[in-house]
Amino acid sequence: MTGPIKAPPVLPDGGLRVVALGGIGEVGRNMTVFEYGGRLLIVDCGVLFPEDQQPGVDLILPDFRAIEDRLDEVDAIVLTHGHEDHIGAVPFLLRMRPELPVVGSRFTLALLAAKCREHRLNPNLIEVTEGEHGRYGEFECEFFAVNHSIPDALAVAIRTPAGLVLHTGDIKLDQLPLDGRLTDLAGFSRLGDEGVDLFLVDSTNAEVPGFVMPERDIGPVLDTVIGAATQRVIVACFASHVHRVQQVFDVAQAHGRKVALVGRSMVRNMGIATDLGLLNVPEGLLVDIDEALALPDNGAVFVSTGSQGEPLSALSRMARGEHKSISIRPGDTVVLASSLIPGNETAVFGVVNGLSRLGASVVHQGNAKVHVSGHAPAGELLFLYNAVRPSNVMPVHGEWRHLRANGELAVRTGVPRERVVIAEDGVVVDLVDGLASIVGRVEVGHVYVDGLSVGDVGESTLSDRLILGEGGFIAITVAIDSNTGRAVAPPTISGRGFSDDPKALDRVVSLVEMELSHIESEGITDTHRIAQAVRRVVGRWVAATYRRRPMIVPTVIPV
Amino acid sequence: MTGPIKAPPVLPDGGLRVVALGGIGEVGRNMTVFEYGGRLLIVDCGVLFPEDQQPGVDLILPDFRAIEDRLDEVDAIVLTHGHEDHIGAVPFLLRMRPELPVVGSRFTLALLAAKCREHRLNPNLIEVTEGEHGRYGEFECEFFAVNHSIPDALAVAIRTPAGLVLHTGDIKLDQLPLDGRLTDLAGFSRLGDEGVDLFLVDSTNAEVPGFVMPERDIGPVLDTVIGAATQRVIVACFASHVHRVQQVFDVAQAHGRKVALVGRSMVRNMGIATDLGLLNVPEGLLVDIDEALALPDNGAVFVSTGSQGEPLSALSRMARGEHKSISIRPGDTVVLASSLIPGNETAVFGVVNGLSRLGASVVHQGNAKVHVSGHAPAGELLFLYNAVRPSNVMPVHGEWRHLRANGELAVRTGVPRERVVIAEDGVVVDLVDGLASIVGRVEVGHVYVDGLSVGDVGESTLSDRLILGEGGFIAITVAIDSNTGRAVAPPTISGRGFSDDPKALDRVVSLVEMELSHIESEGITDTHRIAQAVRRVVGRWVAATYRRRPMIVPTVIPV
Repeated sequence: MTGPIKAPPVLPDGGLRVVALGGIGEVGRNMTVFEYGGRLLIVDCGVLFPEDQQPGVDLILPDFRAIEDRLDEVDAIVLTHGHEDHIGAVPFLLRMRPELPVVGSRFTLALLAAKCREHRLNPNLIEVTEGEHGRYGEFECEFFAVNHSIPDALAVAIRTPAGLVLHTGDIKLDQLPLDGRLTDLAGFSRLGDEGVDLFLVDSTNAEVPGFVMPERDIGPVLDTVIGAATQRVIVACFASHVHRVQQVFDVAQAHGRKVALVGRSMVRNMGIATDLGLLNVPEGLLVDIDEALALPDNGAVFVSTGSQGEPLSALSRMARGEHKSISIRPGDTVVLASSLIPGNETAVFGVVNGLSRLGASVVHQGNAKVHVSGHAPAGELLFLYNAVRPSNVMPVHGEWRHLRANGELAVRTGVPRERVVIAEDGVVVDLVDGLASIVGRVEVGHVYVDGLSVGDVGESTLSDRLILGEGGFIAITVAIDSNTGRAVAPPTISGRGFSDDPKALDRVVSLVEMELSHIESEGITDTHRIAQAVRRVVGRWVAATYRRRPMIVPTVIPV
Repeated sequence: MTGPIKAPPVLPDGGLRVVALGGIGEVGRNMTVFEYGGRLLIVDCGVLFPEDQQPGVDLILPDFRAIEDRLDEVDAIVLTHGHEDHIGAVPFLLRMRPELPVVGSRFTLALLAAKCREHRLNPNLIEVTEGEHGRYGEFECEFFAVNHSIPDALAVAIRTPAGLVLHTGDIKLDQLPLDGRLTDLAGFSRLGDEGVDLFLVDSTNAEVPGFVMPERDIGPVLDTVIGAATQRVIVACFASHVHRVQQVFDVAQAHGRKVALVGRSMVRNMGIATDLGLLNVPEGLLVDIDEALALPDNGAVFVSTGSQGEPLSALSRMARGEHKSISIRPGDTVVLASSLIPGNETAVFGVVNGLSRLGASVVHQGNAKVHVSGHAPAGELLFLYNAVRPSNVMPVHGEWRHLRANGELAVRTGVPRERVVIAEDGVVVDLVDGLASIVGRVEVGHVYVDGLSVGDVGESTLSDRLILGEGGFIAITVAIDSNTGRAVAPPTISGRGFSDDPKALDRVVSLVEMELSHIESEGITDTHRIAQAVRRVVGRWVAATYRRRPMIVPTVIPV
């Protein structure tokens, strides 16, 4: 299905090439590159958040290598919506070509602009809206309203002489959206009439049967929870989920409570949403944290970040009793109006336990309907396939299990199985004469951001971190006479992350000394060989004595 | 509610003391100690599996410190059932007092005996069954059948002159259990008539509304999945879930497939269950792996361990294409007939993705009803409270969120709120004159097993491992003339887990050399002060240059 790295052939005249540099085979860092007539169009450029096996990493970027020598050939980047996994890597791309046109809806570009300011970049933004057409070099684009967990999301149709491509972006089909902005299924049907040659479809929830409850049905649940609360209420949700926050605002207003926003990104994003008319803030509703704290206990709702258990977030600090101004008290109510992203369970439940322990009642999606997903599950995806009736399908945005499930749905609606292309990151798909097929594969690796630098932390460093994180290290330092190989001082042996027992390594000192005498007697003065011998003797001792595998770090200094 | 460590007062004459040394405020390492008349009874003695914040740890034991000087006063350990979180730490306790009587049901003791053989221990086992009474020193015990995800589970009532205590162990109320062995609600009601003074209740699923579907309803789902499969089927589940495996056997038999068991613990436990008559194996059904592989593709079902994504398990190896005999092929079916324990999501979905990528269809509880929980959710817990009508309640087996939810259920059935004691590990609860109350708190820490040793890895080592795992380390070694403080060789600087760039640390060498000259010029020869100065200069440089925080490890050798 995917196979080894294999340079793709030259793209035939009149053909369209599609390569994902991120986002297929994983959830995050979405970035798809389209090529026609020697020119490139990029759809989305997001970041991926690291997992346990990538310790110390802040962000993971798409791998730009396949296009970094061709940035002059890029006609535009089109952004489908403003989530981090779709826009977060744009500044890293713009560093390489700052004037690259970036196309997106108003809210998406406002979020990008805020991000670019942090990176001291001044992007070349082209605002579009649903129903609009735009031509970017070789690519004729048309934009469609789609419903997602952030306002102002778009799908994009891309027309070239090779055919018509439709990319959903992230999508769902809420039939009662809070802002009345429906996913443009009629528009998709019209494209279907015209004939969609390749359909790239969000796979995130393809394994989930059925339909998503409307976002607006969360309002009454929040109303019940906040209405029943006699003390402070804290609601945590994603800082870009404007409609969720809107519902909290409306319910707070109905119950005579003021609202304070907690967390830098929450304050920033809701400011942008208000400015753009996407968030309706009743006069006098918003107060700052100190004002809210001065209100009677039943007078305030705090809307906070930290719904994923991020250790430095406001909510995590509250759960540990370490927040600088908000102390949780018995009888307070905390609502996690958010998803639980796989991998974050331990952190999120840690926060829930901390809050419970302080006496708060914690409402979350496990015990109340306070969250709905932003991605179409199987039932909604079937609507999409039936509207679009595509000739070829390429599931995007998901791990393998999601891609496979999405492909099966396409097949069930009548797409021939051989026209469903499961192509993870780096797989090169050509659309030629109406047929999409895999023609090769380019290398797409993980590009890690750790602190200020990009790319210097790679698999070798991570592998060392995993070993150090599991077992710590034992360092042995030996100073030798460079002429004789004789140790000029006793070996220094110390461990970190190995044992709490200060005497744990005492017994190995004599073993090292014996080994050093032996080495000296053989006339060995090569520091590398001495280091190897020391590593071997200590490694064996630790394995036999403790059955552990710390990193063994010998240093031999010739003096 | 819990508060700081506070030595409890002397237990009043005629009073009963209860202290959990594990299992309350966490899910795992269950161990509750009862004290009456100077004697002790222990219920369960299990292990806890480590989380991300406890890297490199194999197991976590209950903290025996509160009783280790009193082991001669222990009349018995009573085991409620054979899961690792209830029996796994028994060998560690028996090492300290090998002849301690261990009381439990037949299957529970058979599993414990197998475990003790691995530890070269020969335990003093006392077999009991539901309906039986047994007197262990000061404690009169009565055992009740309870339904759980392992056969032969028991609840235990403990009678002393202080009153009647009922401990559920792990429990649910499957009304159509596969083995016909119902949770003895009638027996609990009889105890309720007599008057239960203290009720210790499984909290694991207290947050989950409603009831658990009967275990036997999984059979038809497995029948559909296995009936529809045209190739090999692999079913992964817990190695102790005899009834789940029984249903796989029955369905395989119905479809004319043979069964091979994969994984050491699966083979061992199913052997024990068969010997005890708990598992019914049709003649000729079981074959070994090689025989199964020689069968036609639609002739075999493999029942395997690895349902939690354990990296070394058979299923994980298959998902990576590394299993020595079983290769996953397109069209194979894999069923994860198991729970997804929080914290294991990334590992489990990694396995699902690996299997999907190899072309297998993966069925799991997210897309089919192939698992039910072994723990009573809220609806079933209400039945328990109404049957027992306890005077005092102590929720056990759960994190804070579970304990709180369980306590609320007790209150809703009429238990006065002040009679619900939320007492995490170490909290001392005395039952005196029919009233349970918190009287103090003893220290209960985490006792880590890492490799061969118990207890030498503690919080300080784990803290170092977390730092090393996030950022690696930079080691600087300096040999100085002990008289003058002058460096006798250039400083050696190396990093591990810091950067893939071999030149990353080149620029810091001259900074260290400058610092060493400066130190020498000040006449400082103290190695500790030199090391501190070197750490400071390198730490500052790394923070400014990389915005990272590796461990800085200076070594100064006087020669």
